[in-house]
Amino acid sequence: MIIETLSTFPHMFDSVMGTSMMKIAQDKGLLDFTAYDLRDWTHDRHRTTDDDPYGGGAGLIMKCAPIYEAYQAISGIDVGMKPELTGNEQPTTGPAPRHVGAPAPKVIFLTPCGRRFDDALACELAREERLMFICGHYEGIDERAYELADYEISLGDYVLTSGELASMVVIDAVVRKIDGVLGAEGGALEESFTDGLLEFPQYTRPASFLGREVPPVLLSGDHQAVARWRREQSEERTRRLRPDLLQ
Amino acid sequence: MIIETLSTFPHMFDSVMGTSMMKIAQDKGLLDFTAYDLRDWTHDRHRTTDDDPYGGGAGLIMKCAPIYEAYQAISGIDVGMKPELTGNEQPTTGPAPRHVGAPAPKVIFLTPCGRRFDDALACELAREERLMFICGHYEGIDERAYELADYEISLGDYVLTSGELASMVVIDAVVRKIDGVLGAEGGALEESFTDGLLEFPQYTRPASFLGREVPPVLLSGDHQAVARWRREQSEERTRRLRPDLLQ
Repeated sequence: MIIETLSTFPHMFDSVMGTSMMKIAQDKGLLDFTAYDLRDWTHDRHRTTDDDPYGGGAGLIMKCAPIYEAYQAISGIDVGMKPELTGNEQPTTGPAPRHVGAPAPKVIFLTPCGRRFDDALACELAREERLMFICGHYEGIDERAYELADYEISLGDYVLTSGELASMVVIDAVVRKIDGVLGAEGGALEESFTDGLLEFPQYTRPASFLGREVPPVLLSGDHQAVARWRREQSEERTRRLRPDLLQ
Repeated sequence: MIIETLSTFPHMFDSVMGTSMMKIAQDKGLLDFTAYDLRDWTHDRHRTTDDDPYGGGAGLIMKCAPIYEAYQAISGIDVGMKPELTGNEQPTTGPAPRHVGAPAPKVIFLTPCGRRFDDALACELAREERLMFICGHYEGIDERAYELADYEISLGDYVLTSGELASMVVIDAVVRKIDGVLGAEGGALEESFTDGLLEFPQYTRPASFLGREVPPVLLSGDHQAVARWRREQSEERTRRLRPDLLQ
């Protein structure tokens, strides 16, 4: 899967994308990730990507022109940006477009107004060939940029400063769904939500820790009893903590 | 505010915590952040923090002993770990405990079983003096570690590989609530959720972009009309996209 991000802080992705599961997915060739610098598609000396809001108010709004221009350059899809602004310049900070002409990306904006992100949406996105995340920062993005969106997604009822961080959450949840990323461990199969229940409690050595004992059934070696206990624990926990999931 | 994290990939925090708002909060002295390496509180040659689950199954479970020991060392609060294991060793990879004896940290675990994170919880956490995030990875954490928890928080109905990433989302949403972090811009005041509504559409220059016009009222200079239009847009959008917020 090709995943590309477009933002003003492309280096925010470095330490997360270069570690653990995200790194493994790239090392295995299952994820091709590029973080583009939106400032590469500005044309003023200060490389301005934002400006004051029309109608007044606090904060700065991200301009739509660099976003359209970057989208056109990275995807190869003509969205009407004029050639005298777009054809002759090379990125000066971030990477040059690497997949021009590849399948059209599905464009994702993270916004509190979007569809609530959940396991089902992660599965849906994991079937795509190419995703492009356009990351806002601070007060918002010019409304006209959202015309590029295939998905508007909300992580939840809270506000983040960084669209980069919100995008990484979606990327993590999606990439771990790609066949082969989690490998033979089958980790993604036995976890919360995929079967509509919260996960059962887990324990590892020692069996007794500062007076806290592992439930004896888990030490019994009786696989059927273990499976039954885990199912009961999942159901009880879901009923107590998230009765909405049972409906 | 003191924020500390405890995880097996402490460097995952580097590029997010060192950029933009998170960096500003630290530069202003409003956030004191440390990412501890859980492996510094292991005692075997391989620095093992996880082990097979009791009762069988795929994946590895994080052991509770290193977590208790690290919590005791970082906070200075005795949770019963024995002195021969805890008193004589210095961290070898990550930073040494920096705030022993400071106010007791509120301990936060990110787990799908937790209370749903939202703006109200971000405000609640922003009033604390010290937060400690204990970050799981992969299949889960030994259930007995959760006895240290003051808060169990869920970001939403999806699973992430990285507790580090989930913790950064909470940290971002909390830190921007701390007085003075967003500065005189007052950015955190005029945004989604704080008044129970989704934010109105925003626009910036140019007024006409590839045939897409800014709504004329925003160019009118009539502040009352602008305020009325924005309120109507927020209400209409909330009614259409998130009617649950109006109840």
